[in-house]
Parts: sequence; C-alpha cells; structure tokens
Amino acid sequence: MSVRKKIWGEHAEKIARRLEAIDPDLARYIQDFAYEEVMARPGLDLKTRELLAVTALIALGNPDELKTHLRGALASGATEREVRETIIHSALYLGFPRALGAMKVFSELLARSDESGA
Amino acid sequence: MSVRKKIWGEHAEKIARRLEAIDPDLARYIQDFAYEEVMARPGLDLKTRELLAVTALIALGNPDELKTHLRGALASGATEREVRETIIHSALYLGFPRALGAMKVFSELLARSDESGA
Amino acid sequence: MSVRKKIWGEHAEKIARRLEAIDPDLARYIQDFAYEEVMARPGLDLKTRELLAVTALIALGNPDELKTHLRGALASGATEREVRETIIHSALYLGFPRALGAMKVFSELLARSDESGA
Amino acid sequence: MSVRKKIWGEHAEKIARRLEAIDPDLARYIQDFAYEEVMARPGLDLKTRELLAVTALIALGNPDELKTHLRGALASGATEREVRETIIHSALYLGFPRALGAMKVFSELLARSDESGA
Amino acid sequence: MSVRKKIWGEHAEKIARRLEAIDPDLARYIQDFAYEEVMARPGLDLKTRELLAVTALIALGNPDELKTHLRGALASGATEREVRETIIHSALYLGFPRALGAMKVFSELLARSDESGA
Amino acid sequence: MSVRKKIWGEHAEKIARRLEAIDPDLARYIQDFAYEEVMARPGLDLKTRELLAVTALIALGNPDELKTHLRGALASGATEREVRETIIHSALYLGFPRALGAMKVFSELLARSDESGA
Repeated sequence: MSVRKKIWGEHAEKIARRLEAIDPDLARYIQDFAYEEVMARPGLDLKTRELLAVTALIALGNPDELKTHLRGALASGATEREVRETIIHSALYLGFPRALGAMKVFSELLARSDESGA
Repeated sequence: MSVRKKIWGEHAEKIARRLEAIDPDLARYIQDFAYEEVMARPGLDLKTRELLAVTALIALGNPDELKTHLRGALASGATEREVRETIIHSALYLGFPRALGAMKVFSELLARSDESGA
Repeated sequence: MSVRKKIWGEHAEKIARRLEAIDPDLARYIQDFAYEEVMARPGLDLKTRELLAVTALIALGNPDELKTHLRGALASGATEREVRETIIHSALYLGFPRALGAMKVFSELLARSDESGA
Repeated sequence: MSVRKKIWGEHAEKIARRLEAIDPDLARYIQDFAYEEVMARPGLDLKTRELLAVTALIALGNPDELKTHLRGALASGATEREVRETIIHSALYLGFPRALGAMKVFSELLARSDESGA
Repeated sequence: MSVRKKIWGEHAEKIARRLEAIDPDLARYIQDFAYEEVMARPGLDLKTRELLAVTALIALGNPDELKTHLRGALASGATEREVRETIIHSALYLGFPRALGAMKVFSELLARSDESGA
Repeated sequence: MSVRKKIWGEHAEKIARRLEAIDPDLARYIQDFAYEEVMARPGLDLKTRELLAVTALIALGNPDELKTHLRGALASGATEREVRETIIHSALYLGFPRALGAMKVFSELLARSDESGA
C-alpha cells in the first residue's frame, strides 16, 4: 500500500484530484517524490515522520498544511496524547504562540471529527 | 535520573556551569522548565522528543543549538540512521538548504567523535 | 494583581476558560510560566514587554496571537501612537509585508473597538 | 509612469486610499520608498523584481501580500507559466508546504479573474 | 545629533565607511531611510526602538546584526538588566534556542568590553 | 550539459564528491531531483532561477548555501549589478539586516575572486 493511501485514507482520491487541479507538476512532485520516495524510506516509521512533519509545520506556521499532517499523524497510528505532546514540546523551541496556534487547529479538528461521529 | 543527565551524559555539569555563566535566570528556565518539566513529560519518549527538537532547530537554522540536540538524539537512543532520516525528511518541509546545512553539522559531529575514539 | 488580569482585563476569565478547553497543560504553562513567571519579572515594565511581544509576533506572522498582544499593549498603557510606531519600526527589520499585515490587524482592531463604543 | 501605476493598474487609486486609511506614514514609506525608489531602480526589470517578491513572500508565508505580488507579476509581463515555475522552484528552497500554499493562492486568483471575464 | 551618532558613538565613521565599501546604495538606504528617517521618528524613544530591534533580530537569528543593536541598546541608555530581560522575554515567543543563542552573543560582547576596560 | 555543470563549472566534481561524503542519499536528491529535474525545467531561465534562489536563501539566512547560489547566479549569466539589485530589493520584503548580511557575503566573495585573479 502506498504511503499516501496510509496517510490520506479514504480521502486519497479526492486529495489527489484537488492537488492536480491546483498544479499537475507540483502535484506530481508531492506525490511521487515527497510521499512515495522520501516519506516511504525505511529507517524511520511513518508515525514518527508525521510527528516530525507536524513540528516542521508548526515552525512554518502553515495552518492548512499542518491540518493535513495532524490528520496524517493520527492516521499513521499516533494517539491524541502523542500529538498533544508533540505540540506542547514545540513550545520550547518555537515559542508559545506557534504552539498555541497549532493546538487550536488540532482541537478544532478533533471537535469536528467528533461531531461527525468519526 | 534527570532528563539533562540522560541527554548531556558525562558533560552535564560542564554544560550546566556554562549555561549559568551566560545567564543564571535563563539557565534556570532551560534546566527546570524546558528539561525537567516539559521534556520530562510522559506520553512521548525522549528519543522522539530529541528528533522533534532536531527538526525544530533545522527550521530555525540555529547550528549551535542543533548540535546539542543531534548529540542528545544519539544519547537518548537514536541511531545514526534515524538522525540522518530525520534530516533528509526535513528537506520536504523546510527545503534542501536547511537540510544540507544540518547534515553538514551532523557529519562534522560524527567525524569529530570518530577521531576522539568515541 | 496578576499579569494576566492587567493584560486581559475584564476578559481574563473567558480567555482562561478558552485556553483550558484547547489544552489544559499548555494553558497551565502559558498562564503560570509565560505570564506569571516570565512576564511578571521586574527589570522591564509591562508596556515595553508587550511592545516586544508585538514585534516578535510580527516576525512570526501569527495574526491571532498578534491581536492578543496588540490589545495587551494598549491595556498595559501603550498609546495608539506607540503601537503604530512599533509596527512601522518593525518594517526595517522584518520587511514591509510583515509590517503592513500587522498594521491591518491593528487598524481592524481599533475600528471594532470604536464601533462598540469602547 | 510610476511603478505603482504599472503594477497596480486600474486599481492604483483604490489601493492607495486603502493603504492610507490603514496608516498614512506606513503608506507613504511603501509608496515613496518601496515602490518609487527601490522597485524603480534600474539594473533589474520589473517582471524579475515581482518574481523575486513572490519568492520572498512565499518564504514569509504572508498570503495577502503574496496575492498583491502574484497580480503584480502578471501585470508586469510575467506569464502564468513563469509564475507557476517560480512557485514550483521555491519548493526546493522553502519546502513543499510553502510552495503548495502559494500555488493554492495563485490558482484561486486565476479562477476568480476567469469568472469575472478578466 | 543624528541617530547614527547616538547609536554608533565613536565608531560612527568607521561603521559608515565599512557599510559604503559593502554597497554604497544599500548603505545610503540604511543610513538615510532606516536610521535618519524611521529610527528618528518621534513617538517612541530610541532605547525602546533598540530593544524592539534586538527582539526582531533574535527572531531572524542574524548574530552579526544582533550584536550591532545589542551595542546600540546599551548606547541609547538601556541597562545590562533591561537587555537581559529583553532576551529572556523573547524565549516565550521565539523559543529557548533563539534566546540562548542571543544571550551567548550578549555575554561575549560584555566580556570583551570588560577586557578592554570599557 | 547538465544544470550542475553550468552552475558549478569547473568545481562540479569536487562539489559532487563533497556532497556525497556528507550524505549519499541527500546528495542524490539534491543532484537528481533539485538540480536535474526542477532547476532544469523549461519556462524560466537559469539566471532568473538563481536570482530567485538567492532571494529564498536571504529569507532563510543560510550564508553557506547563499554563497553557492551567489556564485551560481554569476555563473549562469547574472551581472554583479543584477545580483546587487536582487539583494537590495530583498530589503523591502525581508528587512535590512537580512539584506546587509547577504551583501557582506557577496562582497567577500567578489573580493576573494578578485584576489585570485578570477
């Protein structure tokens, strides 16, 4: 099973179509190079990779792409607790505003999946 | 055993003295709050926390503090392979120059500990 | 009176409850460590601390947390002029887009408090 | 013709009025120093300057100001292809999330000007 | 007295010559626009402006330019204590590595001026 | 001729060997994906790509990797004037300290190639 399938789950096709509509070449690099080449490398499990991605995205302050990887972390086996710890931990290195901003995004994401019964 | 002891190993006292010489209050916050309160939290093992710290420091581009946590990652059980994967993985989110800069720091650090027979 | 009371004013309890709903541990660190320990330190008055916080948040580009500290700057005695100067000054170090983005946030905040008669 | 006229086109007066309403002094620095002094310098054509501005804004992650310069790039003669290449190229240095975030902004901007028949 | 004179003190001419050797046009913008126009604005005293500059430079992680403004803060009347508080305070917003890196730069600068009997 | 050959010139083999010594996998991604796939794309000439890279590296504040692309800009046909303009232009978006730091790197690089008679 491809890395994208594992991370994007049932939404994999919808996400792929949306990426391609935005830019087919960038979509191809993200899918073939980022996901299926680099993310798929052995030597570090997918859950750890997603927690690292969450940290990088807290550093960048990109809320949309952060959401994708907060979901990806849960999808690849991280518990809610581990994601919360990753965010709290980031406050040490990246400051409280970045950590708080990320925690808001995560708590909204949990609230919404709760409402939908997911 | 304290988190600092685990991460700083035999250099713990020297590092603590140097921190205090720089600024006693900042040193106290780093030791008591950052290390013994936040880093010591359960819910995420120390090795993962150090790999996350490495990612955050690649994002910031702080080579000195990066070195501390590259060493900390090895000291808390990460293999050379896992550290290399963490750095390569960061290229996706933070770009190649940041990843390459970090890999240079890591490869110098490995070379030096090799020379010293460590 | 606690630092949070001075900065958050009449909204202090509402803000505290919201923070706790997002994450109780992160909320505790922000309240006990960030506000009541570090912000409360002598050696630099609260108004200056809030103007420094505004500058740091312009650097990060976090509009939500910026708003909190723009309000905090006014609440701790900064004039509208001093806040505007802080933002204009930041353009030298952080570029015009960051400064302009921050000035938009500030001018919306002033417009809204004007409407509400505050 | 002033640089602002070339870049802002028919919206020049509206943009100028909006800038002034936000802060007259910052507006003056942006118009007189940023646009009419630095952007107007010879030695680099306006199209290249706007593509460089796009790259800088991808680095900052400021979507509103990015939009201004994506439009400015097209207004100063860059083709859609050149703007897309600028964004894809930025992924190498600034990572995929920044590039993807910018490409979303650009593809929404193109969709909207398509709808309006522009 | 010009702002540069106040901040650069006896080194003003040497610094000006060095800036000009690097690039005469950039030197002119820094001297005429940054220092004599924006830094010279009323509405915020020079000491506060230099502490804000220190915060912005901690955010950027530019050690050379940070040193210039750490010296400038002292030259415009900030005490060692106020500079230390500015740096400690920045840890909340920008993380401990940035604050620690800046405190190292400041403590080296103090040590050197101590040695020279200054 | 490959993109690396054009940019790295006579140093191409030495640079390749050094990259490989640092990390063979990261070296491969930088050479095959970054240089020969993305940098080699049509739709934007190599000189413009290198000036964009310079801007991205000013934003990151990575002096070593900046040097590589300042050299690359000259090697792909940019004049000294165009590189200076790119750096001055970046001050508007990224602030004066980043631009000044980059101009120092560029002026040292020019001085050194002058000395070597190159």
